Amino acid sequence: MMSQQRYPAFIKWPSAVVILLMIAAGGAGAGLEQPVERPFLREMEQIRSIGLSEEYAFDILKRLTALGPRLTASPQAAAAVDLMAREMEDLGFENVRLEPVTVGRWVRGDTEEARIVHSSQIGMQSLAVCALGGSVPTPPGGLTAPVVEVRSFDELHGMGNRIRGKIVFFNRPMDRTIMESFSAYGAAAEHRVRGAAEAARYGAAAVLIRSLTFRLNDHPHTGLLRYDENGPRIPAAAVSTLGADLLSALLKKEADVRVFLELTCETLSPVVSHNVIGEIRGSEFCDEIILVGGHLDSWDLGTGAHDDGAGCVQSIEVLRLIKKAGLVPRRTIRAVLFMDEEFGGTGGRAYAAAPGRKEERHLAAMESDRGGFLPIGIGAGADPSLVEKLRKLEYLWSPLGIHWVRTGGGGVDIAPLGEQGTHLMSVIPDAHRYFDVHHSALDVLDAVHPRELELGAVVMAVLAFILAQEGV
Amino acid sequence: MMSQQRYPAFIKWPSAVVILLMIAAGGAGAGLEQPVERPFLREMEQIRSIGLSEEYAFDILKRLTALGPRLTASPQAAAAVDLMAREMEDLGFENVRLEPVTVGRWVRGDTEEARIVHSSQIGMQSLAVCALGGSVPTPPGGLTAPVVEVRSFDELHGMGNRIRGKIVFFNRPMDRTIMESFSAYGAAAEHRVRGAAEAARYGAAAVLIRSLTFRLNDHPHTGLLRYDENGPRIPAAAVSTLGADLLSALLKKEADVRVFLELTCETLSPVVSHNVIGEIRGSEFCDEIILVGGHLDSWDLGTGAHDDGAGCVQSIEVLRLIKKAGLVPRRTIRAVLFMDEEFGGTGGRAYAAAPGRKEERHLAAMESDRGGFLPIGIGAGADPSLVEKLRKLEYLWSPLGIHWVRTGGGGVDIAPLGEQGTHLMSVIPDAHRYFDVHHSALDVLDAVHPRELELGAVVMAVLAFILAQEGV
Repeated sequence: MMSQQRYPAFIKWPSAVVILLMIAAGGAGAGLEQPVERPFLREMEQIRSIGLSEEYAFDILKRLTALGPRLTASPQAAAAVDLMAREMEDLGFENVRLEPVTVGRWVRGDTEEARIVHSSQIGMQSLAVCALGGSVPTPPGGLTAPVVEVRSFDELHGMGNRIRGKIVFFNRPMDRTIMESFSAYGAAAEHRVRGAAEAARYGAAAVLIRSLTFRLNDHPHTGLLRYDENGPRIPAAAVSTLGADLLSALLKKEADVRVFLELTCETLSPVVSHNVIGEIRGSEFCDEIILVGGHLDSWDLGTGAHDDGAGCVQSIEVLRLIKKAGLVPRRTIRAVLFMDEEFGGTGGRAYAAAPGRKEERHLAAMESDRGGFLPIGIGAGADPSLVEKLRKLEYLWSPLGIHWVRTGGGGVDIAPLGEQGTHLMSVIPDAHRYFDVHHSALDVLDAVHPRELELGAVVMAVLAFILAQEGV
Repeated sequence: MMSQQRYPAFIKWPSAVVILLMIAAGGAGAGLEQPVERPFLREMEQIRSIGLSEEYAFDILKRLTALGPRLTASPQAAAAVDLMAREMEDLGFENVRLEPVTVGRWVRGDTEEARIVHSSQIGMQSLAVCALGGSVPTPPGGLTAPVVEVRSFDELHGMGNRIRGKIVFFNRPMDRTIMESFSAYGAAAEHRVRGAAEAARYGAAAVLIRSLTFRLNDHPHTGLLRYDENGPRIPAAAVSTLGADLLSALLKKEADVRVFLELTCETLSPVVSHNVIGEIRGSEFCDEIILVGGHLDSWDLGTGAHDDGAGCVQSIEVLRLIKKAGLVPRRTIRAVLFMDEEFGGTGGRAYAAAPGRKEERHLAAMESDRGGFLPIGIGAGADPSLVEKLRKLEYLWSPLGIHWVRTGGGGVDIAPLGEQGTHLMSVIPDAHRYFDVHHSALDVLDAVHPRELELGAVVMAVLAFILAQEGV
């Protein structure tokens, strides 16, 4: 609970920039004044004031999302690389550059259709579906097969070869009673990731996966699947939650429900894409890096406004805010927009392994990849002493609406840096709305709130600047 | 900051229902079990589970908003009274009843138009406007007058009689650098409330008020104005933020900008409307009341989904959740849907003064009137000892996403109870999005998130039940 103490001391952190502030004690009749040390308070207020006045992160996001979806290896992803590099240059960032990443290329194709084509209760009826990322196509002209519904892998294994030739319908909803939506998502996502591989072992014809969202509507939510390296590969699609409910209700009434499914997605040859990098060079320790980042690729149903356009534009905005406030970081603050998070994180691995990384020391990396929603907390990494240090700065967090500092944070793209000893952190946004839009056609600019997006950038900027001044 | 202690003690509160729970200590290899007192934990989990599974508050809100806007004294407000009483009866509430309130009746009329009709830079151009609540109409056929822009009452007073015959354009934006949107609103709202009265003293023809929102768009935001009792009354309208920016830019370029304004609003005779009341009778102290409430009237541009449909349906949902969880409160938990908050709070005053109130003792009242957004804190009233008691229950608040308990809370409708000694409280939602929709055509069902709305009801229910069991 946010304590009410008014003058927390900033202590035990080496080389703190100590600012003496005369704070007039509030309250009627109280005229006391006392000096108090509150380092970084002035900088926080500057950054916040610029951010909230200008909401510039949203401006960048408008231009980014106007390019269209940024599926890895797509022309739009390439255009996004160019646009973001230009934004960084226009804002006067230093060492703006592209680093190559070889990425796989999967395309959705022109057709994805599913229809209930046989039941006594219902005539022909469309189901809203989308291919899962990496899925093989159906045979040309599609396939029609009876549907069997399962809610768990145990149930699937229990059915065994009885699912041969059938469409396996994984209908496990995200558990609404779990408060943390990421936990509910994590618990249910295994069917999307592994359902096709597991069902293929028993000779299934295809899989349909209930979309991973709390909302009931007709938007399917895509996402990556993983086949067994040498196992059979069958087509896999997500079905909207309303479609899943319809299909499930029908299966309760009659045994023989058949669905037609056609997917024309395919995997093409790999291409070379890029991570986009720009920085403010540190005035004293320029080889010590504080990294802020997001991933530039997105899914292709929406325009990746939250996932992860938000993280990209916030990372750029962090540097812009610090520059505009006239602040001079002692260590380098670097924005990295990673390519290809959604198809497995090749950009993050390429960055960590790139030539030149060995001459640098990445003290801390924070990734924003949980949507551009209201920031509510800080995941300060795995080191309890860093958590404690940041908690002492509560007088900075409270006026930013940050309610807690805990261990945690990180991200797919910065994980390889973590293996090399970098502190992985994140500013954590509220997540109640994230899976409404995640990996669906609803992930567009209109779903992003300019002030919430900006506040995320403001908190990241304050945190990055502190780390750049104080080290970790 | 939310502390990490695992077993806070519940102490010092009389007659606490003590539940012994065996909590398995977590962590690899740890097999410790220890008894610990965590009263109300089971009840909180029950209420939360029912609420999150069913999201029933949103169901009620669908039906309520389907009636249309619920402007005080309108036919829709009367229909809302009937519908909400029926909802309460259908849910099995006790003592469902209406209490009469005599309310003023103001109607918007068919026409509200504003156009820039003279400038060298721009031809005729519409401005998006709406009459302020309580405004007198323009003369039939409208009025045309030169516009003068002011940003403060000081500026207005400095101009004095030079504004005679003119339209005074109050163009003070909400200050974006203020984090708390209610504070930014409060600082800017005086022009809407008092602008017409102040300008009328100098013979102004009408006033235009910049809409009170951070967003830049073409939705005007209405709200109540107050004339001087015996002073002159001039027409007053809110202009959209984009319209205000356009007008202001034009006035910077040339002196003589004239605007045509027509409003056909009018004040009719008062009518009798009602507060809607239902309750769960206390099993032990049925005359001791824990009140939960919102206001049933709304502005007429949207359907009052957040303001304050949310508070009404949450209040009903509080009782439904407690009943459905099978909980038996020792004191009476009463839902009150107040009429006529927006035009001055006659419903709240009528409730406090109604026959029968003297035989009851209202221990605590909480009003939800800050929108149905994500609950983040509890305003526990003015009594520091109650704040301290509730803080000790942090193990209940943390799993509900409640980050703090502070002094504060209350609302227009329960303020008269406060004067009689009732503890006034509120569950406080995040407010970053509230003024996007407040008093505008954007305040509709689509702007309400079912899970956020429900969580507000869940927290209110837990709080109300604790107060019903423990007293205040």
